[in-house]
Amino acid sequence: MTPAERAELALLLEVTGAPKPGNVDRERDLPDLRFEQFLAGAVGARAGLETAEDGPVGEAFETAVAGMADAAGTNTQFGCLLLLVPLVRTASTGELTRERASEVVDATTVDDAAAFYRAFEQTDVAVQDPPEGADALDVRRGADAIPDLRERGLTLLDVLGLGADHDANAREWVEGFPRVFRAAARVEADDGPLADRGARAFLQLLAEAPDTLVVTEHGESVADELQERALELQGGDPEAVREFADELVERGVNPGTTADLTAAALFVALERGVSVDG
Amino acid sequence: MTPAERAELALLLEVTGAPKPGNVDRERDLPDLRFEQFLAGAVGARAGLETAEDGPVGEAFETAVAGMADAAGTNTQFGCLLLLVPLVRTASTGELTRERASEVVDATTVDDAAAFYRAFEQTDVAVQDPPEGADALDVRRGADAIPDLRERGLTLLDVLGLGADHDANAREWVEGFPRVFRAAARVEADDGPLADRGARAFLQLLAEAPDTLVVTEHGESVADELQERALELQGGDPEAVREFADELVERGVNPGTTADLTAAALFVALERGVSVDG
Repeated sequence: MTPAERAELALLLEVTGAPKPGNVDRERDLPDLRFEQFLAGAVGARAGLETAEDGPVGEAFETAVAGMADAAGTNTQFGCLLLLVPLVRTASTGELTRERASEVVDATTVDDAAAFYRAFEQTDVAVQDPPEGADALDVRRGADAIPDLRERGLTLLDVLGLGADHDANAREWVEGFPRVFRAAARVEADDGPLADRGARAFLQLLAEAPDTLVVTEHGESVADELQERALELQGGDPEAVREFADELVERGVNPGTTADLTAAALFVALERGVSVDG
Repeated sequence: MTPAERAELALLLEVTGAPKPGNVDRERDLPDLRFEQFLAGAVGARAGLETAEDGPVGEAFETAVAGMADAAGTNTQFGCLLLLVPLVRTASTGELTRERASEVVDATTVDDAAAFYRAFEQTDVAVQDPPEGADALDVRRGADAIPDLRERGLTLLDVLGLGADHDANAREWVEGFPRVFRAAARVEADDGPLADRGARAFLQLLAEAPDTLVVTEHGESVADELQERALELQGGDPEAVREFADELVERGVNPGTTADLTAAALFVALERGVSVDG
């Protein structure tokens, strides 16, 4: 398999893993977001993931998001793709290590940043307000922000650096994907079907830090509560995890950023040799 | 979306649809065949499905099967791909009609037939004995049969014609895909999530005729029994369909050819405009 194929498979395995509290999984749809939309999103993202193998990171991301949105009809995997694109590029050009992934994000340009802003015009993305004084760079401005971006000479890594203190995916970019690689090591060390390993990795990631999307949509106290509950459920009764999953669907609380990290971790594990027939 | 993307999505929707008695679905793995292997098989088949858009039908099929087998580690969708490849080709060059699909299969060559034989070397495929006097053309000979094939000047359509009386997929090739297009029309007329429509189409197809793979593996009487049971379950209690699904998994009876027809029907319906966000 190629890196782009493994990245698409990682998206499919991520959504399949169950129970994955608050998220769409093999056992649960959300009221306005169905399992099959994630299947279509993964299929639609593939062309952009192939661009990531040898094209500019920003263009690859924009293409992947556009393909995802066209196929799924909604935003299913925007955050997953933000993590996967630089990792696919890293894997396509040599060994997939944290150091080499940092080199890939260090090499991003102002053009990559412009493409990132254009990607926000493809689909609805839940984001927090920009840092004080950075209104001109609000991603919700889409392509309108590009002149300001160019004037300041900001690369895609610079832009994500602005969000690193409150967005877990941006922090992965800035810090060299520490949580993704740690979770990948746990997936590798685990056994059983990969989707099940992904679901366990999801719960560990949720226990590790508050979910960014939950903070954005429901505030810090709800995100903290989820982290606490996930900690209590570590290594415990699978039935209790299922009950938690059903409860979060009912409450409409969706830790989507933790799913992004899970998909990226599954990709790294696939690159390192785990497989569906292992 | 492109025809190759829709074909890959059709493979993913097919395996997701549940309950699909005797087959892997969103709710059930088989003891030696897991849902995630079908996900990987679909991802791996994509390159061959792209070849089908503008390359030779035989080469496209061989590439799709090789990619599927490499990614899934087993035979997940051989029969699906045999139906999808000519349909992708048809959709890529104009309107997807039965007449135009027949033109595509009519145009297959001896080289296409040779590639079809090589595809059998990529993975294990359950097949019946060849017709009397056709031992030289037994697909289980793989590439060894190619000289005999060339000597007789048989195209891929000719080869499938030899199996049309006992293999439902071969019959679709020879007769212009009648069951696939009828099932596609039912999927279009149905409503709700596409995977659910696929599961209902599967049960209708199973009620329509004995499943080829079940005949091959368990004999005609078991295949007839399944058809009878599927007829009784038409439009009935979904819980009864689930019980039938669990029973068939337990008995190890897998109507795989009916799943092939379902995947092809989902592809035709997607080409005609149904979508996951409909």
